[in-house]
Amino acid sequence: METHLQQELNKLKGNLLQMAGLAERAISNAVEALVKRDTSLAEKTMGADEKINQMELRIDDMCLKLLALHQPMAADLRFITSAMRINTELERIGDQAVNIAERVISLNQEPQLKPYMDIPRMAEITQSMVRDVLDAFVNGDAQLARSVCERDDQVDGLNDQVFRELLTYMMADSKTITRAVHLIIVSRCLERIADHATNIAEGVIFMVKALVIKHRADVKGEKEGE
Amino acid sequence: METHLQQELNKLKGNLLQMAGLAERAISNAVEALVKRDTSLAEKTMGADEKINQMELRIDDMCLKLLALHQPMAADLRFITSAMRINTELERIGDQAVNIAERVISLNQEPQLKPYMDIPRMAEITQSMVRDVLDAFVNGDAQLARSVCERDDQVDGLNDQVFRELLTYMMADSKTITRAVHLIIVSRCLERIADHATNIAEGVIFMVKALVIKHRADVKGEKEGE
Repeated sequence: METHLQQELNKLKGNLLQMAGLAERAISNAVEALVKRDTSLAEKTMGADEKINQMELRIDDMCLKLLALHQPMAADLRFITSAMRINTELERIGDQAVNIAERVISLNQEPQLKPYMDIPRMAEITQSMVRDVLDAFVNGDAQLARSVCERDDQVDGLNDQVFRELLTYMMADSKTITRAVHLIIVSRCLERIADHATNIAEGVIFMVKALVIKHRADVKGEKEGE
Repeated sequence: METHLQQELNKLKGNLLQMAGLAERAISNAVEALVKRDTSLAEKTMGADEKINQMELRIDDMCLKLLALHQPMAADLRFITSAMRINTELERIGDQAVNIAERVISLNQEPQLKPYMDIPRMAEITQSMVRDVLDAFVNGDAQLARSVCERDDQVDGLNDQVFRELLTYMMADSKTITRAVHLIIVSRCLERIADHATNIAEGVIFMVKALVIKHRADVKGEKEGE
């Protein structure tokens, strides 16, 4: 039979998954608004962030109550403190989606600079990272969490590529500058989202293996040797 | 007489103050490297981040042990969970200083674009925010924490100003584009540091007043009525 604490932890999992779903949708809406030049979808994305913010408060409250009332030990304690971190990261992912939506509104005031290829690709990867890292969290799957960390390098690479390409546009034609700078920032926002997902992944690995992967260069070597 | 838990909490405070000192120095070194065009200081800033990263791990470990061994209640529990958040934010401030230092190294490969006025001003304000928010934390000073939140608006304003000014440079002369984009990113890094300090300040207010200020628009009104 499930204990009361176990029931509460399952509720917490459910809430985090729901919040991750909102964050994922915020990313996809923001990038769809970019690609389709849809200002009203961009505004909708900005409005939806309030729901993510409210959810952060609720989950945070839930975690503090669990710590105070159940005084959990070991694995449960690590689960709750991980949940608190994940909660913060998801809220920040929502904020980055809002940043993208703001840039979309500015971008829509001028004709489209170029067809977008790399940015939607970055968005796809970051969405898969958010989705998988939450699966990794609820299933305690350290291997999936590691695959999320690995995808961060792809996103970083695409961000560098977008940056260089847009610099070339700006150099060639000063009329492109404002739009190119907005797009550079959109690309950086996606790169930040990937960082947040990676932060969550590191937390999951910590939770599962009680192993601190962060800031330990030697772990990469270990990983390859596995 | 101090309890064992109380002694441990004081040690935790001391460690967080030390880490905040490192983060503050990282900001000042990164911006000094920018202003003085000092590539070796930029490299030193990047190297020093490892110390901040190690300290994050140590403090995190300390907090988890306190939660597990002492099963603290109410105020102590809020203090420890706040400390965990502050720890994460300080580590990210360190990362932003590294981002600035990286841009400085690129910027130093070309002549200086313009005399810097607003960016050093932003750096001063963000440093004061980091310093004051940690004082607010250790002294439980919600009023000081609120003053930190207020300074965030100044930094946002300066960031907008820097952005607009640099756009003008790029429009007028395409040879300035690469440097201007680097400087826009430096400015955004400082703006992110101010955001991190504001996140800490919100946590301090929560800890002190057990009042959730985040995401509550009505709090601004309350504050003015006090």
